[in-house]
Amino acid sequence: MAQWNRSGYFRSSGSRDVNPDLETERQTASFSVERLTAILDGGADNTRTRRAVEAVIHSEPGFSRENQYFQSQNERYEAAVRRSVYLKEKMHQMGWTEDGPEIKYCYRALGGDLAFNVHRVFKNSILALGTDEQIAKWIPLADKYHIIGTYAQTELGHGTFLRGLETTAIFDISTQEFTLNTPKISAMKWWPGDLGRSATHAVVFAQLYIKGKCYGLHAFILQIRSLRDHSPAPGVIVGDIGPKMNFEHIDNGYLMLQNINIPRENMLSRFSQVLPDGTYVKRGSDKINYLTMIMTRVHILWTEVIPTLLKACTIATRYSVVRRQSKLNPGDPEAKILDYQTQQQKLLPLLATAYAFHFMNAYVNEFYNKGYTEIRQENFDSLPELHALTAGIKAIITEYCTAGAEVCLRACGGHGYSALSGLPFLYTKLAASCTYEGENTVLFLQTARFLVKCLAAVHSGQPIPPSATYLSSVDSGKCQARTSADFLKPDIYAEAYRHRATRSVKSTTKLQGLVQSGAEQHEAWNQCTVQLVQAAKAHCHYIVVKNFIDTVEKLRNEAEIQKIVKHLCDLFALHGIFSNTGDFLYAGYISGDQIDMVTASYLDLLAVIRNDAVPLVDAFDFTDESLNSALGSYDGHVYQRLYEWAQKSPTNKQVRTVGYCHGMWRVRALHTHFLLFTMTFSHPGDQKIY
Amino acid sequence: MAQWNRSGYFRSSGSRDVNPDLETERQTASFSVERLTAILDGGADNTRTRRAVEAVIHSEPGFSRENQYFQSQNERYEAAVRRSVYLKEKMHQMGWTEDGPEIKYCYRALGGDLAFNVHRVFKNSILALGTDEQIAKWIPLADKYHIIGTYAQTELGHGTFLRGLETTAIFDISTQEFTLNTPKISAMKWWPGDLGRSATHAVVFAQLYIKGKCYGLHAFILQIRSLRDHSPAPGVIVGDIGPKMNFEHIDNGYLMLQNINIPRENMLSRFSQVLPDGTYVKRGSDKINYLTMIMTRVHILWTEVIPTLLKACTIATRYSVVRRQSKLNPGDPEAKILDYQTQQQKLLPLLATAYAFHFMNAYVNEFYNKGYTEIRQENFDSLPELHALTAGIKAIITEYCTAGAEVCLRACGGHGYSALSGLPFLYTKLAASCTYEGENTVLFLQTARFLVKCLAAVHSGQPIPPSATYLSSVDSGKCQARTSADFLKPDIYAEAYRHRATRSVKSTTKLQGLVQSGAEQHEAWNQCTVQLVQAAKAHCHYIVVKNFIDTVEKLRNEAEIQKIVKHLCDLFALHGIFSNTGDFLYAGYISGDQIDMVTASYLDLLAVIRNDAVPLVDAFDFTDESLNSALGSYDGHVYQRLYEWAQKSPTNKQVRTVGYCHGMWRVRALHTHFLLFTMTFSHPGDQKIY
Repeated sequence: MAQWNRSGYFRSSGSRDVNPDLETERQTASFSVERLTAILDGGADNTRTRRAVEAVIHSEPGFSRENQYFQSQNERYEAAVRRSVYLKEKMHQMGWTEDGPEIKYCYRALGGDLAFNVHRVFKNSILALGTDEQIAKWIPLADKYHIIGTYAQTELGHGTFLRGLETTAIFDISTQEFTLNTPKISAMKWWPGDLGRSATHAVVFAQLYIKGKCYGLHAFILQIRSLRDHSPAPGVIVGDIGPKMNFEHIDNGYLMLQNINIPRENMLSRFSQVLPDGTYVKRGSDKINYLTMIMTRVHILWTEVIPTLLKACTIATRYSVVRRQSKLNPGDPEAKILDYQTQQQKLLPLLATAYAFHFMNAYVNEFYNKGYTEIRQENFDSLPELHALTAGIKAIITEYCTAGAEVCLRACGGHGYSALSGLPFLYTKLAASCTYEGENTVLFLQTARFLVKCLAAVHSGQPIPPSATYLSSVDSGKCQARTSADFLKPDIYAEAYRHRATRSVKSTTKLQGLVQSGAEQHEAWNQCTVQLVQAAKAHCHYIVVKNFIDTVEKLRNEAEIQKIVKHLCDLFALHGIFSNTGDFLYAGYISGDQIDMVTASYLDLLAVIRNDAVPLVDAFDFTDESLNSALGSYDGHVYQRLYEWAQKSPTNKQVRTVGYCHGMWRVRALHTHFLLFTMTFSHPGDQKIY
Repeated sequence: MAQWNRSGYFRSSGSRDVNPDLETERQTASFSVERLTAILDGGADNTRTRRAVEAVIHSEPGFSRENQYFQSQNERYEAAVRRSVYLKEKMHQMGWTEDGPEIKYCYRALGGDLAFNVHRVFKNSILALGTDEQIAKWIPLADKYHIIGTYAQTELGHGTFLRGLETTAIFDISTQEFTLNTPKISAMKWWPGDLGRSATHAVVFAQLYIKGKCYGLHAFILQIRSLRDHSPAPGVIVGDIGPKMNFEHIDNGYLMLQNINIPRENMLSRFSQVLPDGTYVKRGSDKINYLTMIMTRVHILWTEVIPTLLKACTIATRYSVVRRQSKLNPGDPEAKILDYQTQQQKLLPLLATAYAFHFMNAYVNEFYNKGYTEIRQENFDSLPELHALTAGIKAIITEYCTAGAEVCLRACGGHGYSALSGLPFLYTKLAASCTYEGENTVLFLQTARFLVKCLAAVHSGQPIPPSATYLSSVDSGKCQARTSADFLKPDIYAEAYRHRATRSVKSTTKLQGLVQSGAEQHEAWNQCTVQLVQAAKAHCHYIVVKNFIDTVEKLRNEAEIQKIVKHLCDLFALHGIFSNTGDFLYAGYISGDQIDMVTASYLDLLAVIRNDAVPLVDAFDFTDESLNSALGSYDGHVYQRLYEWAQKSPTNKQVRTVGYCHGMWRVRALHTHFLLFTMTFSHPGDQKIY
């Protein structure tokens, strides 16, 4: 193997001695990667801060995730706890605060591989639902980690439909206590993070009963484990729900309550209170609670979901210029797989999607901040729109990101399937996002319900929320494009998406038709839900395209960057048409000939963007440590890394492979029927057989 | 918790005391489940044999897979080895032979969770490529497991493009030996199953060199591990490639060769031989080798791929009638989630797909057997068609099954994401099938190349292979359907699919256009590949629809069953149109109004098939043990099973949860900077805080 050492093949990972196949891709960038990175970070200052944080995190072996793919569920949990404690110390040491700019970069650098994430939700729920006294009592304890909290809402039998939760909290006037119970197995709390092994306390949602009357769901704080030895409190049965597709570092847990008594003060009482005599008092509007849910939903998009697609794109794109397979022209060397149109068709629209979603951040934040300010002033007018928009955007983004990561995985062939590529981890992580913080089908239907109402407002001349005003504009007839080049005009494709969304939303008038012909409202709704989901998707797709166009427009002082981002915007839009031609052909808005133009422009764009593909993923600026991928590292030495990393696998660390064989023979010896089976596995000794 | 015991909630798994929500679904079946099972098994005799085998397998604790989801990669490998050895014994004991009918049912009962699968490929390759002497020498050793073989073809740097493999075998006339080498890291064998820890011998593919001239790829047998202590042979570096997304029970391995000398007799020489003086002799046609590849490709569909989708459908469908969520009508109890149109839209087309693919078995087998007979007689005329058909069918089936399992997983919400649902295991297993035995994009393009040739034959008046004769039929103009009901006529939708396939294949004449306007043939091909893949998919989709129609036709003596299978066929076909409207609208074959008819019929069918959904999955007749799912068992006690299974998790078996907390505090104590961080994690003692 000496020649390999001489040629430097076995250099240590992390060196910046780059594979020439990757190096050449960087030399021909049409724009400044550094400048685009700064734009993506929201300014060069942010880039500097981020890199400084990453440098600190990656310089500490205590934060290393290099063994992640070889760890058991227990080991991953323990490592996450260790990292979280260590991060607390490090932040203190560096003077980084909980609300400072660094914390999100810590999270990014560590790929979110931390414990106690639900502890934050525990705190937020007390801040949102608790009285000032409750906040004053519990938040300092939580801030100092004297207690570790979880948020126990979901039950075995109920997730999305909150009203169906079955845990009970019965108020006893004589003792001034609530008694909490898990009345049947489906009422067992199931899934809360940090519950399985970490939490000492929980905010538990239960149906409140006073004098036999149910007042609906309320939140209660209770202690579930001893602060001395961490044993479960009397009457509490608690544990881990076992293995999942991912999130092994999180101790999702179960919780059964058997006659747990807690004082009256432990019901979170900002919006409703039980008086000593059992009187139930409601105070103000708890609509503001929706904000917490919306905020969480928006938060996970920027911290968990979109960055994960960006990483998958980075890995698959870099690998696709290093991997060579077969020949495009006989006589040439084998071609980089990214030079094949089919590979471009898999990866480059995803790259455009990654940018499209990243740019949604500004849009949603602006929307959210405006709504937040109004709602804090008890003006709830914008809440339905804010809710509908974030629901649909959450659903479409998680849906596309999950599908995208899967495409990236498969686009890397067998090596993508290796855990060491990092792609199985990214995909399985994203798959969860389609369900948590709102199941996507349910969310799309919430958006659809909003759109149906907007459409009714159009017909009755009522005002329409900004994101849906397009529903009232005049139908533009037919697409005006005459050449392929026309489809590179944002006006042309924006109008096509607008048309499709309008038509799709309007097709839900079938609902009214059913009701008018005698169907029950709920039955009619159910019979239209497949199409209602389609309408919500078309609406969200239009919003994403429109925001991408606006983003390109705003880059007018960055000529080079505007040019490449415009290409990405075009590609995102045309790929959407190319992949959903039926929606545009259906009512004749776009003709078959125009679809051919779209196809031609779309395929041409693939070839154009291919040349900047590596610079475009480099601009995401993920560290190798945060990618944690043998295929995706900056230097492109994929084969060496696969080999080196495989050496670290426990499967190669037993008392040599030999142990396995012995294990196998031993298996045989254990079976009593061995003698019946003498023909097989008998042992001819060590002579070489050839 | 006493009332739970009284109500029998904690009955042991496997009891046939069925959840009433599932029981009622079975009482209204429109057909005999037992009869449909017999049809699916290919006759009631087969069903009997299968159940007898399953009874034997499941009665033996040695075959149990109940701890599978809690095992590490090492444990899964060792368990698979143990089961495989045990199965050998059991087969011997029962008098089941290697070529008997029972073996495939063993495989089914054990979910394929066995070791030494590549040992069979090792044997087959010797049988196909070896001389009679080589077969006589090696096969008995392999049959008796005196040696364990692997098939070392794929390398780190090359998979699909076999000609690019880089391992070398240089013939030395003076020693009459071949010297095998791994000349660079990308030439390392990587991925072969049974190589990482099990195999003692390997069939290794290498570029043959004689006197400096390369004669291309040839197969060589060599010993890689000692038969005494299993240590690697001198010059052999061998190990496990580490964790993967699934297939942890298989020891996929790597292999480096450093000057390994093997005698001249160890080159498999049925089709080419190296004489002692270095003369290279070719004999007969090695085209017959394609048959092995085709056979393997077909084999995995029926053993690994399609049954996995059937299982996923079984789990998701049963769960969807047990899970209740929200109310369809206010005042009603919560509805079964399968009563929601959106859930039907997710699962029922998959159920139809599962049946469609299952019925492809007969078609492909007939096709294969006919080709096989001809090819054994050295008539290779049908080889291109057999190759193209199986390539495309493998690609479309693995593609749809993988996507389908993912839909099933997500349709079960959070619980689908739990490993205990079995769905993550089924999905991740299927994901591999899109890559192994031929990467799907490459396979689709091979089918497309065949179709392009068929089209040229149409134009030049040459004969056309049977599966593509439709390309020469006259264009039928417009779809003749006038009502929704018309779209339930197989003639109508078959014609629509035929039209779409024909148009799609004909659109590849763009290729000729590019060549005529001066593009190089290979460049032109690359520029058309996105559309060529579409053409291949449309072709395969048509074949599956047509075969489904033929199957329904053949059920004419089974009125009840024919009726429900006809519904499934309609649903499969209409779902395909509904999901790809653009393909049918594009050239105006189907109008927008007709798409509305398709949609109406399609949505109506969902409601019809929903009533038989559970009987339709029951007919697959998977045992609980083979499903290995807390959500999918026959009795439908999902919540109890989730809870009971979670107890078995190692995360709940440490020295109580308490251990984890201590672990956490210990973490803190390990850090030297602890004193800088006294604000957090300090310990207030055991007083209850509330």
